[in-house]
Amino acid sequence: MASRGGGDLDVVGIGNALVDVLSHASEEFVQSQEVVKGTMQLVDEPRARALYEAMGPAIEVSGGSAANTMVGVASFGGRAHYVGKVRDDQLGEVFAHDLRATGVGYTTPAAVSGPSTGRCLILITPDAQRTMHTFLGASVHLGPRDVDAALIGRAKYLYLEGYLFDPPAAQEAFRVAADIAHAAGRKVSLTLSDPFCVTRHRAAFLDLVEGHVDVLFANEAEICALYQVSDFDAALQRVRGHCEVAALTRSERGSVVVSGDEVHVVDAHPVDVVVDTTGAGDLYAAGFLFGLSRGLDLATCARLGSRAAAEVISHVGARPTSPLAQLVG
Amino acid sequence: MASRGGGDLDVVGIGNALVDVLSHASEEFVQSQEVVKGTMQLVDEPRARALYEAMGPAIEVSGGSAANTMVGVASFGGRAHYVGKVRDDQLGEVFAHDLRATGVGYTTPAAVSGPSTGRCLILITPDAQRTMHTFLGASVHLGPRDVDAALIGRAKYLYLEGYLFDPPAAQEAFRVAADIAHAAGRKVSLTLSDPFCVTRHRAAFLDLVEGHVDVLFANEAEICALYQVSDFDAALQRVRGHCEVAALTRSERGSVVVSGDEVHVVDAHPVDVVVDTTGAGDLYAAGFLFGLSRGLDLATCARLGSRAAAEVISHVGARPTSPLAQLVG
Repeated sequence: MASRGGGDLDVVGIGNALVDVLSHASEEFVQSQEVVKGTMQLVDEPRARALYEAMGPAIEVSGGSAANTMVGVASFGGRAHYVGKVRDDQLGEVFAHDLRATGVGYTTPAAVSGPSTGRCLILITPDAQRTMHTFLGASVHLGPRDVDAALIGRAKYLYLEGYLFDPPAAQEAFRVAADIAHAAGRKVSLTLSDPFCVTRHRAAFLDLVEGHVDVLFANEAEICALYQVSDFDAALQRVRGHCEVAALTRSERGSVVVSGDEVHVVDAHPVDVVVDTTGAGDLYAAGFLFGLSRGLDLATCARLGSRAAAEVISHVGARPTSPLAQLVG
Repeated sequence: MASRGGGDLDVVGIGNALVDVLSHASEEFVQSQEVVKGTMQLVDEPRARALYEAMGPAIEVSGGSAANTMVGVASFGGRAHYVGKVRDDQLGEVFAHDLRATGVGYTTPAAVSGPSTGRCLILITPDAQRTMHTFLGASVHLGPRDVDAALIGRAKYLYLEGYLFDPPAAQEAFRVAADIAHAAGRKVSLTLSDPFCVTRHRAAFLDLVEGHVDVLFANEAEICALYQVSDFDAALQRVRGHCEVAALTRSERGSVVVSGDEVHVVDAHPVDVVVDTTGAGDLYAAGFLFGLSRGLDLATCARLGSRAAAEVISHVGARPTSPLAQLVG
């Protein structure tokens, strides 16, 4: 799938704008919180507050799945823009600063009332897994009016996170953006985000994947949840005909990319020590989308994704700490 | 100097409550900001805002010199309490959470009006040095009314940061607290904090060191600034008679502790890679004060300080990431 050319932007990503609150936690603590390790759970403000009080000391780092991906695209040297909603508060300023400071365009106006900037409380266990609790906050105010048609039309790829289906207005923004992109002759990509998120919105996701998505990102648990199968290969056979390109990630077992009759099985890039898996999927998508936007072949796109994911799991935090552009070439 | 016993707390620290905003920066960027590398400079809100906009992506971590020290004392297994002022905003909540989550008592009421929670913008250069720009924010509202006499009386050691001399009301709180501690038969310790801070308040610091401070912490630049000498040994001779104990730190050259005729020259604890020197002095003081509060001899106190400093300079951030209690014994 060669680059379509024409856009002055490589990728526009739309997602829930969140600040990550990262803390190391014991297995016992995570178990005591009655959550499924390694997944994302939505929490309301009182629950977020109670969990925060019980958590250990934390660091605050800008996050949000699609935002992390856009930072990755920019770090590769790509031209990326982000759409997502914060409030006009301190964490909202932090979020906007960190995006712009990495070269990602960000012009969505902050909400001036309603809930505060969204947060994702992330517990990192000694096995480097992250368990996430998201308070959506101001993200629920992202709506179709925040989708700038001219902006979407400028980017070769639109990138949407499945998490957008949780706030209803964002779901509407998602559909509007996808329609605009296709009308402008652009490609639409989607990440399924999380197996529980898939289960919450399964019918809508199936419809999207079959009819509206050109490039699909999913990990093993997510793609199995989408097709309600327990076997990766079964899911693989199902997804093959459903969208132009599917890039399926399998943690240390690498990724599988299918596009019609074309299939690539690409190894994970080796890592000395896995410190924190937060952002692995986000950065895989960044490398893959950067490659696509530059007209690279699918296997190379997958390798760029694997290398970007390897960088981000080698340290705490979901955004790269060294320029990804050095991984290209 | 044996523990005085009697207090149910080991140390109460008073300081400017700040959230650190940590970012990696090039030498060129730091030079372009017209500051002296490795020091702390006070900035007003517009300057802090302009610098933040020019800075790269950052992470937010609770800081404040004396607060870092109290976290270190608690990490050693000591009983620590902190006094310092934040506002009732998001960064203020972060600051309070991180202290309490590490076991440090913190009961100072947040300001409900006035400037926002103070911030320290920290640029980490490739040589691991940190250059700091402090917007004091709500810290300027710390005053004598925030000093709880009963609390001060409960702790074997009062610990004061020299930075408290920058906001005028905090300077007053500083003096009140020192008087209360001495009246209760407790020891008063002080860190000189920064050479420019010493120069700003030199007469007051000289008076304090001569008449009111039992344990003095200073690095080489600070103790030379206090006595306006350019030679470490000259400063050492001057400080000997001025306070009961002086612990003078010299980065990779270790520390020198003097107490009357007693002198110890203790090596720095070896470190594989120095990543970020932020917090080195704060954590040295933590180890030293913990040792004093447990009645350990001065050389052992200095070694605990060196080991705690070594831990904190091995990673980004000014607070320990592994329990310091494992260094004891």
